Amino acid sequence: MALYIKSIENLINEFKKLPGIGPKSARRIAYFLLKLPDDDILKLSRSIVEMKEKVKFCSQCYGLSEEDVCYICRDESRDRKKICIVEEAGDVAIIEKTGEYRGLYHVLGGLLSPIENIGPSEIRIPMLLSRVKKNDVDEIIIALNPTVEGESTTVYLKKILQPLGIKITRLASGLPVGGNLEYADEITIGRAISERREI
Amino acid sequence: MALYIKSIENLINEFKKLPGIGPKSARRIAYFLLKLPDDDILKLSRSIVEMKEKVKFCSQCYGLSEEDVCYICRDESRDRKKICIVEEAGDVAIIEKTGEYRGLYHVLGGLLSPIENIGPSEIRIPMLLSRVKKNDVDEIIIALNPTVEGESTTVYLKKILQPLGIKITRLASGLPVGGNLEYADEITIGRAISERREI
Repeated sequence: MALYIKSIENLINEFKKLPGIGPKSARRIAYFLLKLPDDDILKLSRSIVEMKEKVKFCSQCYGLSEEDVCYICRDESRDRKKICIVEEAGDVAIIEKTGEYRGLYHVLGGLLSPIENIGPSEIRIPMLLSRVKKNDVDEIIIALNPTVEGESTTVYLKKILQPLGIKITRLASGLPVGGNLEYADEITIGRAISERREI
Repeated sequence: MALYIKSIENLINEFKKLPGIGPKSARRIAYFLLKLPDDDILKLSRSIVEMKEKVKFCSQCYGLSEEDVCYICRDESRDRKKICIVEEAGDVAIIEKTGEYRGLYHVLGGLLSPIENIGPSEIRIPMLLSRVKKNDVDEIIIALNPTVEGESTTVYLKKILQPLGIKITRLASGLPVGGNLEYADEITIGRAISERREI
């Protein structure tokens, strides 16, 4: 018979639902929390509720923001003629961290998937179109994951955006920097060959 | 410049403090939580506070319990003449899970460590002694981790308990079941040889 204390098992069940946390890590976290002072516990539980209360979607790019318009869309120093399309709000942070991009974003909130019945209106493609038509945009950078859904969404976006006369680019595919030919899969190497660049 | 949203960074900082969660997992958890419905968020944050409020130490064995006396100490069907000594409250659950033990427990809450100034009174050795003297105990099973501190605490416990005429045992050391000689360290193999058993 395993030791059963209801409120501990409750917490373990809740933590097990989080990504990357299995039953053993959840139990380890539970016992760790039991040893923390009450203040730290309150800080942790409050941080969860507060984040959920404060963070909403930016009304322009649908990225995360505590304000109605996020600080990227508000930032007048950014290149407002470039829009980078990403799948999830979290992807914005990933691209921002590189420091290589100074334009705006548009978060789709998903990818096209006929199997799961996700069409253009289920993800924020209509909002993208009206944004592009209303503003002076000269480049759309598609930064979707190189998966099947990512590729077909990219193809679809190209089809509907090209008639508007906008330059459409996408992230380069190829070997990861510091990577090794030996460990790369054939598709990545194939892509690296077909997209090779003169040096 | 990385994307900075205060309440998200707050939550990430709190989660980073948990065992086994680094900055990347914490961020992944944050974005996961943002997508959850409010109800699930409340359940998670409430489970943390509730566990902390409800769980206390059993007044007899110092294991975890929602009651003053834990259900193991209350269980009259258990062998009350055996006490298994463990370091942390979480160790009780680990031994209970084996189903091999039907006695009581005593949680020390730490190990002797002269370097860290932890003497017998800093861990619950006085409580153990008075428990042993007050009750009819015929065996003490020492189930401490086989580390330096675990070993020296075991030696100390043996020294103070032996004069009371109680049988003192400890968990067997040796090869893990399903283990492989090739992957075991020399000390473990040495212990397995010196503690070999007739079959």
